[in-house]
Amino acid sequence: MAIITLTTDFGTSDGYVGAMKGVIARIAGTRPAPAVVDLAHDIPPGDIAHAAWVVATSTIEFPHGSIHVVVVDPGVGGTRRGVVLRARGRWYVGPDNGVFAYVAERASEAYAIENERFRAEHVSRTFHGRDVFARTAAAIASGEDPATAGPRVELAGRLPWGPRELRTGRVVHVDRFGNLISDLPEAEAGPAIAIGGEVLPLVGTYEDVAPGELLAYVGSAGTVEIAVRDGRADRRLLLARGAAVLAAELDPARGPYR
Amino acid sequence: MAIITLTTDFGTSDGYVGAMKGVIARIAGTRPAPAVVDLAHDIPPGDIAHAAWVVATSTIEFPHGSIHVVVVDPGVGGTRRGVVLRARGRWYVGPDNGVFAYVAERASEAYAIENERFRAEHVSRTFHGRDVFARTAAAIASGEDPATAGPRVELAGRLPWGPRELRTGRVVHVDRFGNLISDLPEAEAGPAIAIGGEVLPLVGTYEDVAPGELLAYVGSAGTVEIAVRDGRADRRLLLARGAAVLAAELDPARGPYR
Amino acid sequence: MAIITLTTDFGTSDGYVGAMKGVIARIAGTRPAPAVVDLAHDIPPGDIAHAAWVVATSTIEFPHGSIHVVVVDPGVGGTRRGVVLRARGRWYVGPDNGVFAYVAERASEAYAIENERFRAEHVSRTFHGRDVFARTAAAIASGEDPATAGPRVELAGRLPWGPRELRTGRVVHVDRFGNLISDLPEAEAGPAIAIGGEVLPLVGTYEDVAPGELLAYVGSAGTVEIAVRDGRADRRLLLARGAAVLAAELDPARGPYR
Repeated sequence: MAIITLTTDFGTSDGYVGAMKGVIARIAGTRPAPAVVDLAHDIPPGDIAHAAWVVATSTIEFPHGSIHVVVVDPGVGGTRRGVVLRARGRWYVGPDNGVFAYVAERASEAYAIENERFRAEHVSRTFHGRDVFARTAAAIASGEDPATAGPRVELAGRLPWGPRELRTGRVVHVDRFGNLISDLPEAEAGPAIAIGGEVLPLVGTYEDVAPGELLAYVGSAGTVEIAVRDGRADRRLLLARGAAVLAAELDPARGPYR
Repeated sequence: MAIITLTTDFGTSDGYVGAMKGVIARIAGTRPAPAVVDLAHDIPPGDIAHAAWVVATSTIEFPHGSIHVVVVDPGVGGTRRGVVLRARGRWYVGPDNGVFAYVAERASEAYAIENERFRAEHVSRTFHGRDVFARTAAAIASGEDPATAGPRVELAGRLPWGPRELRTGRVVHVDRFGNLISDLPEAEAGPAIAIGGEVLPLVGTYEDVAPGELLAYVGSAGTVEIAVRDGRADRRLLLARGAAVLAAELDPARGPYR
Repeated sequence: MAIITLTTDFGTSDGYVGAMKGVIARIAGTRPAPAVVDLAHDIPPGDIAHAAWVVATSTIEFPHGSIHVVVVDPGVGGTRRGVVLRARGRWYVGPDNGVFAYVAERASEAYAIENERFRAEHVSRTFHGRDVFARTAAAIASGEDPATAGPRVELAGRLPWGPRELRTGRVVHVDRFGNLISDLPEAEAGPAIAIGGEVLPLVGTYEDVAPGELLAYVGSAGTVEIAVRDGRADRRLLLARGAAVLAAELDPARGPYR
């Protein structure tokens, strides 16, 4: 059974997600319907970078061939292109505005969505989630070849930060718990990291520090994260996405570190 | 496979939605379980008009025969009636308090839910979502004839606004993005609309105006919407549901309109 | 088809729930995938007692054999144990930190999760929802015997309140509507209850009092609840979880009670 996941900034108080699910169910018709999986619908409105991180870190757990629709699309109806791309053995469908910036690093192919078998007859100017992207996902799930969606294209969407330098990361995501998640890989971190004027040794998990204390550790994405045990690191450090996270040495003069 | 959608004001921090899903799964027993689809669970508590719009605009995308449960039910256990109705080729189940005001315009049949094959043996006074409406949906999904749920009735639920006049609409929904969605159909709008002292030309989409500017356009429901590009129209205009939206002419003295 | 439900404090703006769903879909492989059901993902962060009540009152509606994963896990990676337990004919999977305090009253068996068929090869220190609990649920759904997950154990997780005395309850849950839900069973309540200096007769449902008035009634869990019609009891009484709810007599001197 095909799997289609949905990631949007539509929230759960309006009918937009429901309309997308309805389209997918309707197009399936009497065929076995694809499994529709809610990934995350409370992406902050229009926050492309937030969506990009959520999609990259969660869809990698899904099996090959799964189809992942992302609708965080403040430029809907404007100049940005709708695309379908294959990356890491999975299909991704959505606006080419940066939401695929992380997953597309290893993208092998991307196609503009132009063919009418992949979109509604009448496409509204403000709801491509319903009229284009849900349709495209349903078409792929029903066996259409994504390579026929339209001409092959290069992705144009970018995130607002440039390439990372060695042993230097930045906060790329702040999660619900106020944890600051960086893109500094475990292999490049030292025995400690520096952020916001603090030098923090890398520890294993929250209980390795006292309640209320800051800690740094290798998170579930394989990169360095900064948290406060039973608290919020974003509020403690007053830092947000984009803040620098640097590999560091333990400073014996400042110890003892736990 | 039968499809049951759920729309509630139960939120996603309590067990009420889960209990409804459990009832549906349990009643399916060894038969193929219906697909249970979350439409929207963060309807503002008790906001019947909000639910009515969400249900009308999203369920229309689902295939004929689908079953749509709506539990926004501040009068649960009191005098309002529980009903099942057929409208637009789909089944709707919930309290007769106005949540079906938009979908029922073309309703062909409505039945009170009284038959015990459509409800629990012991019905609590405060959770008909679990004890009546989930049961009714599961019964229909398993092949029961909704016409046997109880006596045929006329729907009593109304929304707090009267009939609309020609070329005059009102804001019927404010969505998550602060967009003001009216019931003024595209065909009745002029080249512009008037709202809150502003005259706005109808444009195509957000990018047709500069960031931060007001715009009016035909939205995904086929009616006029008012938005602020990258902002919130509800806060800009300080308007809420019920505000008038009038067809208008472009005023050459006030131009240029973009 | 196996049923797996998910209850977390992960919210719906991050990728954590999606990652768990991905793991379950991936492990199912070409076998029929289990039905994955969202119970509640907006458990307040780290609120074990909140999760315990939600899980107990909703999972009881699911059929026997269903699998219920709970990830409210502030001590992840630390000393608390991951467990699978059988209670009330259903399987429960999660941290042994109190989230199973209500369901485990009648637990017949609990096992530590140690066997590598029930967890990932590499287990992160901070995301056992993905690396252990989703895996365990998927393993059970695919036919593994939970009794082989690890050694049989006694549950250690407790909630911060001791045993209840006769005719004395406490508020154990405050729901989205501000209703105060107690553990005082209907059979022990008198014709009235006392809470926060108020004596309230037990009535049937919200409409039995005027809008804005306090009421007490037997809720959908079979225990006494306190609400304000069209309002919030938590804000009216300024009470929270833990507040005492006592069986009481109607005081004729204070009547008339509605």
